[in-house]
Amino acid sequence: MAAVRARTVLLTGSNRGIGLELVKQLLGAPRPPAWIFATCRDPEGPRAQELRDLASKHPNLVLVKLDVANPSAITDAVKIVEGKLNGMGLNLLINNAGIYTPTASLETVDAEEMIRTYKTNAVGPMLMAQAFLPLLKKAAQESTEKGLSCSKAAIINISTIMGSIEKTPESFFKPVISYRCSKAALNMLTKCQALTYGEAGILCVALHPGWVKTDMGSQEADLTVDTSVRGLLSVLPILSEKHSGTLLNWEGKAIPW
Amino acid sequence: MAAVRARTVLLTGSNRGIGLELVKQLLGAPRPPAWIFATCRDPEGPRAQELRDLASKHPNLVLVKLDVANPSAITDAVKIVEGKLNGMGLNLLINNAGIYTPTASLETVDAEEMIRTYKTNAVGPMLMAQAFLPLLKKAAQESTEKGLSCSKAAIINISTIMGSIEKTPESFFKPVISYRCSKAALNMLTKCQALTYGEAGILCVALHPGWVKTDMGSQEADLTVDTSVRGLLSVLPILSEKHSGTLLNWEGKAIPW
Ligand SMILES: NC(=O)c1ccc[n+]([C@@H]2O[C@H](COP(=O)([O-])OP(=O)(O)OC[C@H]3O[C@@H](n4cnc5c(N)ncnc54)[C@H](OP(=O)(O)O)[C@@H]3O)[C@@H](O)[C@H]2O)c1
Ligand SMILES: NC(=O)c1ccc[n+]([C@@H]2O[C@H](COP(=O)([O-])OP(=O)(O)OC[C@H]3O[C@@H](n4cnc5c(N)ncnc54)[C@H](OP(=O)(O)O)[C@@H]3O)[C@@H](O)[C@H]2O)c1
Repeated sequence: MAAVRARTVLLTGSNRGIGLELVKQLLGAPRPPAWIFATCRDPEGPRAQELRDLASKHPNLVLVKLDVANPSAITDAVKIVEGKLNGMGLNLLINNAGIYTPTASLETVDAEEMIRTYKTNAVGPMLMAQAFLPLLKKAAQESTEKGLSCSKAAIINISTIMGSIEKTPESFFKPVISYRCSKAALNMLTKCQALTYGEAGILCVALHPGWVKTDMGSQEADLTVDTSVRGLLSVLPILSEKHSGTLLNWEGKAIPW
Repeated sequence: MAAVRARTVLLTGSNRGIGLELVKQLLGAPRPPAWIFATCRDPEGPRAQELRDLASKHPNLVLVKLDVANPSAITDAVKIVEGKLNGMGLNLLINNAGIYTPTASLETVDAEEMIRTYKTNAVGPMLMAQAFLPLLKKAAQESTEKGLSCSKAAIINISTIMGSIEKTPESFFKPVISYRCSKAALNMLTKCQALTYGEAGILCVALHPGWVKTDMGSQEADLTVDTSVRGLLSVLPILSEKHSGTLLNWEGKAIPW
């Protein structure tokens, strides 16, 4: 299996769930990245203990405080990452952080819940890409590769099949309106990012990790976090221009909008 | 050409553009609705002069103050409409109000602009349907018609082809990120509404009015507001269960998500 060869990677929401497992498997890869920026809301707090334990063993792992719902926290994080990169670019930005309100049906959802979820799941990834764009562009410029790839420069938005309007009837036993609307918007954002950033050599893809046993997915879910992340990481190296602006699942299969 | 036979209709953003023209053509129909609730943000202000002139000539036209970005204004409006309907239901809710920031590219858009647009274009229609649901349900219950239709009970969300992720490359010379993301979310909302409200006998459809010469569409646009609204009003009477949860244009043609 090909492994992703991004030298520098940044992830959001990396203290638990899919984000944490991505960090672990990236660290354990045959040729791990030179730098992994594992960002989370509270790197000093109890919820980041596992991440800190990993950082104490892996000098290429850097913990950075970052709340994706806070625009100024994003620009603060850029400065820290820039300092560490010391002139290098950022190959891979993984917008993984997300929130999900299982009880949000059309009966119960309100404006606040809609906006809170949109802020984290759609606006956050938009701001992240804007803020890290200079570093992504630098990585693309430094690369001698033709075309688009995750080892050159890429934005991966962790989306979901629940953001597919076409597929909604299949999973509507969980209405989760605020989540679905935010992820449909994230899918639109991904298409717009692909059309905007492609010229600069940056690949933009939305990935559905499957239904995964995490706090969000619950223990009823189909996939272990290990299987899902193994899948996601085996999809990354096969991505090229033709995938930019699409939604794929953890096995690389296209999902309709 | 069949005309829509909804007895009671409510529209948002009806003081200018497509909303105002919908009011005019509904009033001019061979069998106009018994009640048209033309809502707008400032029915007493200078921007509603045309609407007031119409109301002075048409006793079935009722002006109601309603800002779709203000949840409490929505519940206030329900009370007024309920009072006027005096036990009757509401057949047709047209969520037409919308905002558009022509300059919002990925370079310029910020969190505030994303959220402001989402509030009006996606959250507003969600809250409107929630608030008017009892009246829509009442209309569906009162009807002896089988299946779903606009003369029975329907929610029409005025969306746009710019909310189609699939079609984005064709119109991306205008990136309008905040607008596209909000309308993709509105399309998802429409699908969720169709799946939720169908059981209660309520049809839910998203309509693209074409590119229309209004303040929003500019004078460069393809269609006059007269042509667009004539199209929209000729699509309404043909809608049935099979259209619920889809996006159609002003000629009744399906648009992919
Ligand atoms: N699990 C599934 O079945 C599934 C399916 C489809 C898609 N997904 C997507 O996969 C991604 C990861 O999900 P997961 O299952 O790992 O969820 P999870 O176990 O609930 O973890 C969510 C992560 O996001 C972080 N986060 C939430 N809001 C944040 C914010 N404002 N700023 C920074 N970080 C924030 C959380 O940090 P805190 O610890 O600080 O809260 C946590 O690290 C999400 O985008 C989700 O939508 C998951
Ligand atoms: N024109 C086009 O080419 C085109 C194409 C595709 C889709 N559309 C959609 O068609 C709908 C109508 O567009 P239009 O061309 O008629 O636009 P427009 O000429 O700009 O008129 C917009 C209307 O929405 C109202 N509005 C805005 N925010 C509101 C709020 N918070 N609460 C209540 N009303 C609000 C405005 O009221 P104020 O006077 O108070 O601002 C105005 O009546 C929109 O949903 C738009 O997205 C238009």
